Amino acid sequence: MQAGKPVLYSYFRSSCSWRVRIALALKGIDYDILPISLIKDGGQQFTKEFKTLNPMSQVPTLKIDGIILTQSLAIIEYLEETRPTPVRLLPQDPKKRAHVRMISDLIASGIQPLQNLSVLKKVGQETQLAWAQAVINSGFGALEHVLQSTAGKYCVGNEISMADLCLVPQVANAERFKVDLSSYPTINRINKTLLTMEAFQVSHPSRQPDTPPEFQA
Amino acid sequence: MQAGKPVLYSYFRSSCSWRVRIALALKGIDYDILPISLIKDGGQQFTKEFKTLNPMSQVPTLKIDGIILTQSLAIIEYLEETRPTPVRLLPQDPKKRAHVRMISDLIASGIQPLQNLSVLKKVGQETQLAWAQAVINSGFGALEHVLQSTAGKYCVGNEISMADLCLVPQVANAERFKVDLSSYPTINRINKTLLTMEAFQVSHPSRQPDTPPEFQA
Repeated sequence: MQAGKPVLYSYFRSSCSWRVRIALALKGIDYDILPISLIKDGGQQFTKEFKTLNPMSQVPTLKIDGIILTQSLAIIEYLEETRPTPVRLLPQDPKKRAHVRMISDLIASGIQPLQNLSVLKKVGQETQLAWAQAVINSGFGALEHVLQSTAGKYCVGNEISMADLCLVPQVANAERFKVDLSSYPTINRINKTLLTMEAFQVSHPSRQPDTPPEFQA
Repeated sequence: MQAGKPVLYSYFRSSCSWRVRIALALKGIDYDILPISLIKDGGQQFTKEFKTLNPMSQVPTLKIDGIILTQSLAIIEYLEETRPTPVRLLPQDPKKRAHVRMISDLIASGIQPLQNLSVLKKVGQETQLAWAQAVINSGFGALEHVLQSTAGKYCVGNEISMADLCLVPQVANAERFKVDLSSYPTINRINKTLLTMEAFQVSHPSRQPDTPPEFQA
């Protein structure tokens, strides 16, 4: 595979895709988006062609530097290691790095997988809203507690990090599932601060090439 | 908090705890285990005391260097950054590092959270075996495909890595849920190779201080 401009396989409303879109924006990496609809045609992620790129049938998937990468946090760590400037997504101090990864994993392993589309389909239409709310409330309760000791302006101190790239898309999911955010003042505050930044705005689900008109900002 | 000998809060059968136990063994780190039963007393992870350590009420949790860390992969990355010898758990090459993290996340975000005890409880006793099998088969199908292009003797080439620390405990879960492993020859082969190593044996669920007699090797 020739290494040209990176190509991101993305779905406008996928919170894991959004994490990577923020990273690409913060690092100023020019890339093309190839939209994969998780809904149209029974889910374009299940086509044979896409499965050769990502056998998990998931977005995001990134073609970059002649390789194909999947799993949003693995992609972000790769971008960090190969393109550390202009914005670092992990602090220099190992303990702070651990806190960033801890918060990122709390969201990426502890919340998001349990409320994603494929799980909610299995749970069934009648109970899926209550299921998603329970998962997010449980995770956000823990996250709020963690943030009270790690947060400054952002999730870990006053420097933006990978943890913030996980936070904002997860809050958007929470809002979509009508979770009351008033119990999570720190999450709420950091989310609002981050949403004022350009990298979070250009990568927002409402501003993607595959955003349907009714979801456009 | 004073930094003394590290303390691992662990449950013998928790696959995420096992990942960290393997890392500690490979790196030759002396530590104490403090068992947290996920079953006794309605789950010791839910006590107020434990929740102050880990608000997610999950094992593993590691006290080390004066801080408390949660999330197995964040813990392993911290051990790697602060104790790179005698055995490295991430390769030097950024592309290979990305493959290691991709496989680790495939298991840690894409399989394990969907078949852990708390989810199976919510799914209900009648359907939990079929649910767990479906999740593991779907993930292992993808993983087998990925490994066919990344694996050598181990998950990524011929050096042991964090991906291997995720693989073996997940295969043990698969066996517990009676998943037929014959469709996954690469997974099966790597698992068997790894299980011959001392670090995987001393950390095995059958050899922990909290292993009940009926699960002892």
